[in-house]
Amino acid sequence: MKRVLTSELKEYSGQNVMMQGWVHRIRKLGQVIFIVLRDRGGLGQMVIEGDQADAAQVTGESVIQVEGLVRLEDRAPGGVELQVSDLKIISQPAETPPISINSRDIYSTTRLDTILKHRALSVRNPEIRSVFKVQAEIIAAFRDFLSDHGFTEISTPKIVSSATEGGAELFPVQYFEEKAYLGQSPQLYKQIMVGSGFERVFEVGKAYRAESHNTARHINEFLSLDYEMGFIEDEQDVIQMEVELLKYVFRRVREACSEELDAHNAQVPDITEIPQIRLKEAKERLRELYGTANGDEGDLSTEEERQLCEYSRSEYGSELIYVTHYPRSNRPAYAMPDPEDPTLTRSFDLLFRGLEITTGGQRIHQYDLLVESFRNRGFDIGDFESYLEAFKYGMPPHGGLAIGAERLTMKLLGLKNIREACLFPRDRTRLTP
Amino acid sequence: MKRVLTSELKEYSGQNVMMQGWVHRIRKLGQVIFIVLRDRGGLGQMVIEGDQADAAQVTGESVIQVEGLVRLEDRAPGGVELQVSDLKIISQPAETPPISINSRDIYSTTRLDTILKHRALSVRNPEIRSVFKVQAEIIAAFRDFLSDHGFTEISTPKIVSSATEGGAELFPVQYFEEKAYLGQSPQLYKQIMVGSGFERVFEVGKAYRAESHNTARHINEFLSLDYEMGFIEDEQDVIQMEVELLKYVFRRVREACSEELDAHNAQVPDITEIPQIRLKEAKERLRELYGTANGDEGDLSTEEERQLCEYSRSEYGSELIYVTHYPRSNRPAYAMPDPEDPTLTRSFDLLFRGLEITTGGQRIHQYDLLVESFRNRGFDIGDFESYLEAFKYGMPPHGGLAIGAERLTMKLLGLKNIREACLFPRDRTRLTP
Repeated sequence: MKRVLTSELKEYSGQNVMMQGWVHRIRKLGQVIFIVLRDRGGLGQMVIEGDQADAAQVTGESVIQVEGLVRLEDRAPGGVELQVSDLKIISQPAETPPISINSRDIYSTTRLDTILKHRALSVRNPEIRSVFKVQAEIIAAFRDFLSDHGFTEISTPKIVSSATEGGAELFPVQYFEEKAYLGQSPQLYKQIMVGSGFERVFEVGKAYRAESHNTARHINEFLSLDYEMGFIEDEQDVIQMEVELLKYVFRRVREACSEELDAHNAQVPDITEIPQIRLKEAKERLRELYGTANGDEGDLSTEEERQLCEYSRSEYGSELIYVTHYPRSNRPAYAMPDPEDPTLTRSFDLLFRGLEITTGGQRIHQYDLLVESFRNRGFDIGDFESYLEAFKYGMPPHGGLAIGAERLTMKLLGLKNIREACLFPRDRTRLTP
Repeated sequence: MKRVLTSELKEYSGQNVMMQGWVHRIRKLGQVIFIVLRDRGGLGQMVIEGDQADAAQVTGESVIQVEGLVRLEDRAPGGVELQVSDLKIISQPAETPPISINSRDIYSTTRLDTILKHRALSVRNPEIRSVFKVQAEIIAAFRDFLSDHGFTEISTPKIVSSATEGGAELFPVQYFEEKAYLGQSPQLYKQIMVGSGFERVFEVGKAYRAESHNTARHINEFLSLDYEMGFIEDEQDVIQMEVELLKYVFRRVREACSEELDAHNAQVPDITEIPQIRLKEAKERLRELYGTANGDEGDLSTEEERQLCEYSRSEYGSELIYVTHYPRSNRPAYAMPDPEDPTLTRSFDLLFRGLEITTGGQRIHQYDLLVESFRNRGFDIGDFESYLEAFKYGMPPHGGLAIGAERLTMKLLGLKNIREACLFPRDRTRLTP
């Protein structure tokens, strides 16, 4: 007999079907046993009346196979249930699970640390699982949009011989006799691939930052959604591509994940356009509004990111805002200087609900300017020989950006901690599971 | 003026358009200059007659922008050319490239080592670039097929605390104060995620093997196409899913990459079904046919893989063949023993044109059996606590497999070395570019 999923049950009303899944909830009412079955389609109600040899053994998280008649029943969740005629236990839990898998609001009863420690179990909770359904949809939409816009997917190495974003925040790898590192971003490789003639490339891959702070916004291994595009006028082309990309991603999530969004009371923004503000102007505006004095003129503090999003919402009715024209001193060596003020760059961040989710910009494509910029940072040009080669032999103006998949998921669903948006997070103290 | 790609040129016959790209080839015939322009759409012919201020400076790999009239011209490649009225140099090479980018058969004139060393340049060669177009299509088709079959994409950590496939072939990572490793496969994580209720999951991600041999079939960082599925009968369900998957992937590549296939004189197999042979029987057959005596009864040697594919082609007319029932001693601890002969496993390899491109099988889903199997290998059960947790609380019968993306690309295109199918390979001696 063909297996039917809980999500398909209604289509089989009046028919005999077979179902398989986990026992999500079990309840006895006199001679009747109600089981909520959990499978990849969702949840469905099974009703057992009278004698069923195995039914007495069934417990929470038992894996079972049932056969029976599908009938419409107004009182059942989803308006349909299975009247079980045969029940078989496929796999039986050895113990009672240490966390409550079927809780409706699991974060109110269970600490995040416990949830992450028991990830193999906690991810069975439908609310938690729904986060990763939404994440999968975000990533699929990212790829589909870019493929439809002439981008080619690439896969670049994560074991690298030197830093790409500068700084000391690198995880060392012993690569046979050589010392290597985990890549902080595919930056240099995706630029090379613009020069390859693909012109437009994207990558969905892991990136690593050995940052030692342990905050609700940082994980040390994250999924980076990168794209890079050639023959641009300036960074505005990169921004406009992202605005259209996010419109598409948000629409896809809204359409494909309505139940998951409901489970988190999440609202997906309806983007028309996204306002932009120069960093300097943003700082001034925040000083006027909040009297905040921030020592670092080159970047926004966590608090300022939050405030600026508040400002954007009240001033522009937008939950997203681009911050542009970061100073050169606060951006990587490859950032394109602003021709109108060479102390600034043609770079930007995108803030969403108080958090930076994207960093991008136009890059330097002129070989001489790039070499000079790398030298000024004190880099050894020899370390970047094969990168610079791409620029030595004809490179078009180009730019790109990276979106943190976990951060976008977190903000879209209103999660409190980025670890909730990562299946198996790696952080300052977490290396398992 | 809107930019038009070389691949779109014919649609604009009789119109004035703007084009951008690299100068692939340049040839002067009296007062006329012919330029073959290379952009992400392919190659296209530009004709410059009379005076063009910048034209004299144009050289191979110059990045240019041209405007002009599109006209049909039988003698031009593709039957169309651009009569240039305006030419502008966007970016000029600083030197003559150290390798010949526009060679038609670059591997006959340039050594693979040189090609890989100058990857930023060599990937501009259309024949080389086409490998990665095919690879992108394979990966996109892999994802689309599985998404359409109820699989959810996941992203699992590549920094892990212990070995998953056994063996000492691990790259060590210094993770803050802890010693960690690069993941050999997402095996344990994808099994956990079957138990999560997603039931069917896939991942496209990097995997690492610190194998010290330096062969034409091995790289140390590869792109692993993994899937894992629950509620199976046995390993045949996993195999049947792959047969359908490969039919789909091959059809997509055939349709989307006909030019790229032609560039490599590559034939994509037309799969109807894929024959299967037990390892023991394969060994016997090869002994009869080739008299090969191989000491290791548990696996096929490189030569035997080649011979078995020859046998498959002549016996079954198939370029692919499954080898099944590997002995337990040669398979990982999580491999499901064959109930009919517990010294064997419900596992398989898939060979394609002489090379193993897939390893898979049914896994042990019973907690007690799994613990026993891990103990028998001498593993410390404590190291696998969070993995085993998934099995302690109800896990369905499941199985899965991994396809090496570079190996599949290599065999599909008839490449001689796996490094040709990897943008930036990492091997025994190669850590850059």
